[in-house]
Order: sequence, then C-alpha cells, then structure tokens
Amino acid sequence: MVSLQVTFQPSAKRLLVEPGHTVLEAAHAAGIQLRAECGGKGLCGKCKVQVSGYEGYTEEEMEFFSQNELRRGFRLACQAIVDKNLTVYIPEESLARKQRILVEGVTRKILLAPNVKKIFLKLPEPSLEDNRTDVERLRDSMEYDMRSVSLEALNQIPVAMRDSKFEVTLVLLGDELVGCERGDTSDRCFGVAFDVGTTTVVGYLMDLNSGEQCAVKARMNPQISYGDDVISRINFAQNPENLDRLRRSLRDCLMGIITELADAAGTRKGEVYELVVAGNACMQHLLLGISPRSLAVSPYIPVVKEPLSVPSTLYGKRMYVLPMIAGFVGADTVADIIAHPLDDRLRLLIDIGTNCEVVLGTEDRVLACSTAAGPAFEGTHIRYGMRAAPGAIERVEINDHVTVHTIDDEPPQGIAGSGLISVTAELLRNGLINAAGKLQTSERFASRMKNDSFVINGAIAVTQKDLREIQLAKGAIFAAQRILLKTYGVTVKDVEEIALAGAFGNYIPKEAAKDIGLIFDIPTEKIKGIGNAAGVGAKLCLLSVKERKKARVISESVNYVELSSRKDFQQEFVDAMYFPHSNLELFPLVRERLARTNPSFRSVSNLIPTSE
Amino acid sequence: MVSLQVTFQPSAKRLLVEPGHTVLEAAHAAGIQLRAECGGKGLCGKCKVQVSGYEGYTEEEMEFFSQNELRRGFRLACQAIVDKNLTVYIPEESLARKQRILVEGVTRKILLAPNVKKIFLKLPEPSLEDNRTDVERLRDSMEYDMRSVSLEALNQIPVAMRDSKFEVTLVLLGDELVGCERGDTSDRCFGVAFDVGTTTVVGYLMDLNSGEQCAVKARMNPQISYGDDVISRINFAQNPENLDRLRRSLRDCLMGIITELADAAGTRKGEVYELVVAGNACMQHLLLGISPRSLAVSPYIPVVKEPLSVPSTLYGKRMYVLPMIAGFVGADTVADIIAHPLDDRLRLLIDIGTNCEVVLGTEDRVLACSTAAGPAFEGTHIRYGMRAAPGAIERVEINDHVTVHTIDDEPPQGIAGSGLISVTAELLRNGLINAAGKLQTSERFASRMKNDSFVINGAIAVTQKDLREIQLAKGAIFAAQRILLKTYGVTVKDVEEIALAGAFGNYIPKEAAKDIGLIFDIPTEKIKGIGNAAGVGAKLCLLSVKERKKARVISESVNYVELSSRKDFQQEFVDAMYFPHSNLELFPLVRERLARTNPSFRSVSNLIPTSE
Repeated sequence: MVSLQVTFQPSAKRLLVEPGHTVLEAAHAAGIQLRAECGGKGLCGKCKVQVSGYEGYTEEEMEFFSQNELRRGFRLACQAIVDKNLTVYIPEESLARKQRILVEGVTRKILLAPNVKKIFLKLPEPSLEDNRTDVERLRDSMEYDMRSVSLEALNQIPVAMRDSKFEVTLVLLGDELVGCERGDTSDRCFGVAFDVGTTTVVGYLMDLNSGEQCAVKARMNPQISYGDDVISRINFAQNPENLDRLRRSLRDCLMGIITELADAAGTRKGEVYELVVAGNACMQHLLLGISPRSLAVSPYIPVVKEPLSVPSTLYGKRMYVLPMIAGFVGADTVADIIAHPLDDRLRLLIDIGTNCEVVLGTEDRVLACSTAAGPAFEGTHIRYGMRAAPGAIERVEINDHVTVHTIDDEPPQGIAGSGLISVTAELLRNGLINAAGKLQTSERFASRMKNDSFVINGAIAVTQKDLREIQLAKGAIFAAQRILLKTYGVTVKDVEEIALAGAFGNYIPKEAAKDIGLIFDIPTEKIKGIGNAAGVGAKLCLLSVKERKKARVISESVNYVELSSRKDFQQEFVDAMYFPHSNLELFPLVRERLARTNPSFRSVSNLIPTSE
Repeated sequence: MVSLQVTFQPSAKRLLVEPGHTVLEAAHAAGIQLRAECGGKGLCGKCKVQVSGYEGYTEEEMEFFSQNELRRGFRLACQAIVDKNLTVYIPEESLARKQRILVEGVTRKILLAPNVKKIFLKLPEPSLEDNRTDVERLRDSMEYDMRSVSLEALNQIPVAMRDSKFEVTLVLLGDELVGCERGDTSDRCFGVAFDVGTTTVVGYLMDLNSGEQCAVKARMNPQISYGDDVISRINFAQNPENLDRLRRSLRDCLMGIITELADAAGTRKGEVYELVVAGNACMQHLLLGISPRSLAVSPYIPVVKEPLSVPSTLYGKRMYVLPMIAGFVGADTVADIIAHPLDDRLRLLIDIGTNCEVVLGTEDRVLACSTAAGPAFEGTHIRYGMRAAPGAIERVEINDHVTVHTIDDEPPQGIAGSGLISVTAELLRNGLINAAGKLQTSERFASRMKNDSFVINGAIAVTQKDLREIQLAKGAIFAAQRILLKTYGVTVKDVEEIALAGAFGNYIPKEAAKDIGLIFDIPTEKIKGIGNAAGVGAKLCLLSVKERKKARVISESVNYVELSSRKDFQQEFVDAMYFPHSNLELFPLVRERLARTNPSFRSVSNLIPTSE
C-alpha cells in the first residue's frame, strides 16, 4: 500500500500515513494536539481545519459549515479521510495547546495620555428659556475643545440624554465627539494595540484609565493560506476580489482577537474605543484594502507612509495605523524604535522575521534597511523545520553525544529557528561543516551522516539543502548590517549594542548567532533580546498621543537605505554566506573560539579561494 | 350590492366601486393613470402599489415581489381585487404621468465655487532616485492644500496611477482627497442638491464645472406611508427599528432620484461627488438616523443645528446637510433665505407646507417662527382635496355660474390648495359664507347647497368641515405673521414685500389669499411667488462654498420666536380664523372689495360678537 504525505500548516510538520486514516489521526501522529471534545465523533465541531483540494464531506460537516466554508475547504479533521497527498491548515482556535508567541517585551514608563477621553456630565434639562440644541448643551458643559461630532455620536446623543435624565458620559477621540453613553461610564475605557505580522497577529487589551494590560491574545495571520510571505500575498492581491479577500481575512482575525480579549478580561467590546496597529507595510496596506502592488516592484514604495486614523469597521470607533519608514521598513520598525528608543549610543536594532529590518544609529542620525531573510528561521523551506511550538528543538549540543533541548521539554517534533542556528554553530565548531557550509565526512559521527544530512534526533536531521537556506538567510541579514555600517561611516567597534527584536529574536542563542555570522562579533553582554518590540511600541502609542508624535518624527527622520540600489550588496551577500564570513578578520573572537575545535580556522584569514 | 370605498394616496382621491373590480380599474375610474405596459395582464410589473391590510396575492405577484415586499403590502394594481374598503398608496414610479411638483425658482447669479474640485495631473513615475510614496507624489504635484486623504481615495490611488501611466484626476472635497481616477476626467464633475420635504423630495443634478442644471427629478417622500405629518413620523420613530425604517426609506428615495437624474442626464452615478440637502429639521434628523424625539416635546429643540458633512452611504462621497435655525424652522427656511436674500427692505417670507415657516426682517435683523398649518392646503383632511396634479381645480369663479380651472385643463378630479383659497374667497365675496366661515342659505345657488356643502362641479363640493380646516390653517399662518410683526415692533405698513415660497406658495391666487386673510392686505404688486426657494437655496449651496458660509451665518443670526411660549398667540389665532379677520381695520382694501358684493362687510369693523 502506498503511503500518503500530509503537510500541516502553519507548523510545516509533515508525515506519511496510510490511506484511510482521518486527518485528526494524522495530526495526532504528527504530535499536533487538535481539540476534539467529542472524541472525534463529528459532534463538537472543534477540530475545524482547512484542507486544500479536498472534495467530499459528511453530513456531520454540513451541520457545522456553510456551503461557502465547504467550498473554501473547511472540514472537520475527525471526518476528513486521507485519500491522497494533502496540505492541511490548522486554525489557531483548533489547537488544544497554542503555539508559543512572544507577547512580553521591554517596557518603559510613560505618562498616560491616550487619545480617548471619557467625560461624565450632568447637564441642565432643556426648557423654553434654555432651548439650546443637544450638541450646544454638551459643548457648553465641557472644558475640552470639541471640533466635530461623529454621526454615530449624533445618533446616540438624544436617546442617551433623555433615557438617563441628562446624565451622560461623552467619548472623545482627540477633539471629535464619537460617543455618548447613558449615566457615568467613565471608569470603563479600553483600547487594543495590535502587532500585525506576516505570520502572527498579537492583540493587547489595555485599560486606558490605568495604563494596565488586561489581556493578550495571539492568532496566526489567516492570510497564510494565501501565501507564506509578503511577496506571494502581493501577487495574490493583484485582482480586487483577492485584495478584498485578504483584507477581510485579516479584519476577521483582528475581530476574533478583540472578542477573545474582551472575554478574557470581562469587558464589553463596546468599551473598546480605539485600535492602534503596527505592522509591516504590506500588512497595513492589506488591512486597509490598499493595493500593495507598488511594494513588489522597484522602487518598492508604499502608497502612503503617514499615520492614518480611519473609521473602524471593527469594534472600536477608530483605528490608528502607525506611520512607516519605507515600503519594506514598516510601522513595525517604527514601533520597535518607540519601544527601544534611540539615545546617544550607536546601536544596531535587528528585527528578524520573514523580512528582516535593520536599524543603525543614534537619536541624531539613523539609517534603516530591509532584507528578505526568507522563512527559513520560521521553519519553512527547512526539511524538519517548524515554528516555535512545544516539541520544537531550540538548542543542540554536539560533543561526544548529541543533546537536544525542546520547547516545554516535549519529545522532539522538528527544529525551531533558534535550534537551526544552534545546530549550525555546533556543526561548524565540530568541523562537521566547513566555512562554505558543506557537510564534511566524519568518522566520529559516521552513523549520523547519511543522505547528505546530519541526523540530530530520531528522524530529525539537518540537510545540506537546509544549510544552504540558512546561508542565504544569514548572508542577507549580515550583508544588510555591513552596508548600514559602511553607509553610516563607522566600523563594528563603534557599535555599542545589538538589540534583537521579534518573537524569534528573543530566543536566539547569542554565541551561536555570532559563530555562524548572523550578527557581528561583539561581546555577548552588548547583545540584547528586546522581545516583541513592535507590540510594545503599539501599546505605548495606544497609551499616549505623545508617543504617536514620536512615531511620526521617527517615520520622517529615519533615512532609508535601498539595498537593491547598492552595487556592493551582492558582494557583501556572497561574502556573508560563509560561516561566519569570508573575511575572518571581521570575526576575531569567533575565529579564536572555532579554532579551538576546528583546525581549518587556524591559519586562514580570508576564506574566499585564491582563484577569485 | 354594497359599494366599497377606495382611497388613493398620496393624492387623497377617493371613490366608490363595486366589489370585484381590480385596483387598476378603480384607479382609472378615479382619473389616476397608472403605468400598465402589459395592458393589465400581470406581466410588466409596472402598476406596483401598496395596499394596506390586503392579504391575497396571485402567482404573477409572487414573480415581482419578495416575501418581505408582499408582507409590506406591495401588490400589482392589475391583480389586486377590491373586496373591502381599501387604502392604496401609489408610488411615484407607478404613475403614467407625474404629479406636478414645483422645481423652478428664482435664481440669482453667483460665482461658481463648489466644494468639489477635480485636478488632472501628469505625475513623474517612481524610480530608485525618486522613491516618494504615491501620496507624497500627489501632494507635491498639487497647488491645493491636501489636509487628509480618505480611505476610499487610498484604495483607488495605486491602481489608478499604475493603470494609466501616472496620469490621474484627483477629486478633492474641500481639503480632503476623496478620489483618484484614471486619466483626465476633470470635465465630468457633478453634484445633486436635494429639497427634502415632508411630502415631496426634489433632486437637482448640477454640473459643477458650468453651474448648469442637468436634470430635475421629484418623488413623493415614501415616509408618507408612516404618517402624513412630522408629528406622526416622530411618534412612529420612537423605537430604533422604526427610526431606521424611516431613515432607510428616505435614503432609498434619494438614491432612486439620483439614479433617475443620472439616467436623464447621461451621467454615471460615480460622477456625482457631493450631495447637498435642505430639509426641515425632522426630515434632516431622520435622514441622518438621529432620533427626532426632542422635536416633539417642549422646548422643541433639534439635536444639532450646525451644518454636517457626513460620509454618504448613497452615491456621492459626502452629504452636506445645511444648518437649521430651530426645531421647526429648518434648513429649508435657511435655504429659502439663501435663494431670496435679505436686504435693507423689511420683508415677510412665508413658506407654506404642512408646516408653515414665517420670516420677517432685513439683513440687519431677522425673526422667524413656525406654525402647524396642517395638510389642508395639500389636499389632506379636505373632502375632495387633492394635491396639485392634473385635473385638480386651482381656480374657481362664482358669478351667475360657477367656472372652474383645472391643472392641464383636465376634467376636474378634486380641489388643489390654490383652488381651496380661490373658492373660499368666492364664497365669501358672494355672501355664501359669512365671516365666521358658516355656509349661508342662498336662493340663487340653492341647487348647489346640499348636505352642509357647496357643490362646485359634478360630485366635487366644499363642505362646512372643509371650511373649518381652512380657517384653522389660515388662522395659524396669519397669527404667526401678526406675532412676528408685533415682536419686531412694526406694523403692516412697514412691510415692503411678502414672498410666498414652496410648491404651493407659487400658485396661490394673491387677491383671494388676501380676501380670506391668509396674508396681510398689502398691494398685490408687493406680493411675490418665489417658487421652490428651498431647492434653489440648496442648489446655490452646492455650487458655492460661500453660500454655505452665508447659510451658517443665517442659521446663527435669525432669532427664533417660539409661538407656544407666547401668551397672545391663542387670541391672535382665534381672531385670524375669521374671514378675513375679526378686526376688519387690518384689511381695509379687502373689506372695501368684499363690501361691493357682500353687504355684511359694509358696517362692522370688528367681527367678534359684542358679547365677547
């Protein structure tokens, strides 16, 4: 009997199963815990998945899905039978245990100055002597300036006033009156900050009266089913219907997160008055329904980079979308800088995602650029790669034995980005790969060396092809850092800190990252994980309009460096594909460390063959 | 066999028919020409009517109507059988010939300065050297200030630019960019001005490049099916569902008019960029979905009187709603004054509708008030009353014979408002009613005097009850004028002009209006019909932002007089119910004229019985 391959997304886990098993059984075999409260009888509807190209469905499935959902491939994992090779997308809510998504982050103290104000007023009742209109009555009773009144507020005003004996709470967004509520509701005032990534969307429910975080919820970006990276989504969005599909899927994701946040914190969705969004340029374009096509062709410009305050079709009265720097240095980078403000020290900030943004500078002068790192560090295009979920290998030690550390100490399921960096550094240290990334023969580990790959644990191995993917990713990221330093006119000795941002950045093994040449060879104490800085920056902008002003200044003052216009980029990229680099003089401490166990690093200073 | 009564709305025509006839047959018998292209076979669906309380329907009707429409009483007139007393509402579009609605009006020359600007731009294409965002590129190429960009414009910009080699036409509303179109469309720029009345809605399609009127279309206000006057609609709107029903029915009416206008003028609806609305306070509240409940109780205040520019859910990017003066002196009155501007002469402006607004003043000082004239002059509550449609009697002469003049010289169908004034004046002149409005016995017209009524033509008569309705209406309108003069501190001799506005005002027989005491006894050459001034004012405000500024000044500077707070109003009202007035010294010329043929006006000067 022929085995069939099932690939689970977004974790990228793959396995072979015999025909006739259900998708639920396959998922369990792959170590993915799907919800199945009914025990797989098609009764609870919790094991919802999206199966591309799958056609049959059962009566049980007709109960749970609309015709439209069935067309879009929604199925119950306990009902769908594996009868050919399948790709199965698992929505976040169908997972029994959620993927680990970084939601903490450095914070700094700010004064609360939210854009939302709630004001309780006891108004004099109208009479023949006092026949001001409702709006005049409000305006006259308020100390704040009220430049305009939204139609929604106008719809609420007469009813709220007269149903509550003229005791009402006004909701102001800036100088616009956007709501009028019965009685005193001034102690209930919330907002949600969003970090909208290509892969992950995180929402933070904030109490705008206290500045406290009430709840955090994250979901996978559902646009993943239309393409892993921004370029494939931009291509998909070429026609207006698909653009709208992407817009709606992201909007629904944000709405779902708001619902979860409100449920978790015991607030009503109507008490959420403003949303603040930080995302990369493509995500922000798609969320607003703006065609991102200009981002995909030179000179890679966004349609708009200014901040936008738009009426929200979600809960909340308005959505404030943070400003960007350039087409591939988006509001997420602005938010990174808000969270980790520039000062008088020369610092590098690196946000590693599917796209990698690099910022270099001080409060007086800043450069930024972006480079396509690719999804290797997020588990895609890697044979046994997976995202940072329980069971993902995040650290490897190769001595006499090979030791692996997994997330939550679960049995190993695959390799996370941090594990990839770790294993590459260990292979290099042990001479199992050379500086050009080629797997070497080894007597000591002969049993692990097979089929052009190195077996880490059980079936899990790192392949020669994987190593090439890692070289491409780290080459691009390091070349970007080099170009920025050159453009700035400084050397690595001038760099006083490297801050690693992003969900992945926080878990990077710092020594290993230097060993493979992902980042510069500076003392480890100068390397800092700053967590999900984009989310922190979005929160700060939700809590204070002053931070929004700073964001605007950042978006206007950061100088964008377009790498594709740099003639030296290609050479820097090629040089940086070596482990750690073709020019070992750039990595003196790393070289010394590697030379202890790998003799090939003892004599050379430049790894490029002499013929070149 | 018992005859059944069928009442047609909004014309208020009534007739008796034998059971078994179709509604279409009944309509034809009543002189109402319904569309019936298929000859009444239930095939064309053009004779659509709304029948209250009618339950059965045919298969043909199921073809044309949704379940929801059937529930709301929609039927085909050719299929619905008269089997009990029925009230039938005839939508404007089902009429073969439309009701005459006044759409002309005095105009004055203004400089074109519309809020909408279209600007054609040839933009430099982006390059690595010129990597400004799309919005920056637009902003830099424009001489106009661009304060903000709407989300809709942002959605259009990247596509329009790249589909047309960076040659685009921008649409600006004030300083907001609201649209971006491919190529040069700057010669296609339109707006629609609306006069939204309780009974009638008129739309004017204006070319904003030339200032020319391209088309005019009018429809009955569909809210009529929820009540004839504003008070009954306010009562109906007490709960949110009904408020929304009223809002939607009016919005649909406006959308229908825009479609008709565009079809008539050969424009696309997408080329209509702004709507300007002038209506009474209640209509404007309902159109915006704002509860009008505060208008119905003392002190009768609107929720808001400032002008509003709101995103339009209709065609057009924005709807500009003109400012009001008070709860019952709305934007229609402001528009009246815009159309017929105040100057240094002391003038009265009277807009007669279901509500009557009276304005008195000069450019330096203005008073305004409102009074409920009731719908008598619009044909409702009058036995044979009807609106100004073909066949409506608009003038009557009583000498030896009774001569009638009808609209379009059609066979008489009923009496229009102008006809009511005319016949009342003639009855008075001939001594057939006394000053207290009581029908007198007459040998000369004995055959016409029956059942407490005076037969005008065929079955058409004016009844004693009709005369009471006329007295109530004209009493209220005249009392309002008197109070304004008193408050202003002037007498009728100081009044230099009486301007009569509104569809009905234009057709009032001036002499007769003075004879019955509807307006002051001033020389006829000082009385002027100014047509549908509210519509003209709305058009002017569409064509020029300067006129909008004037409207704002008018709304803030006109002093509102609340008649219900005036202790003398009741007495003025009672005095003014006499024909022409209890105090004949106020009507010296009228008295002289009436005295020639009616001896009772020869000796008295005050008609109030001495006992009072």
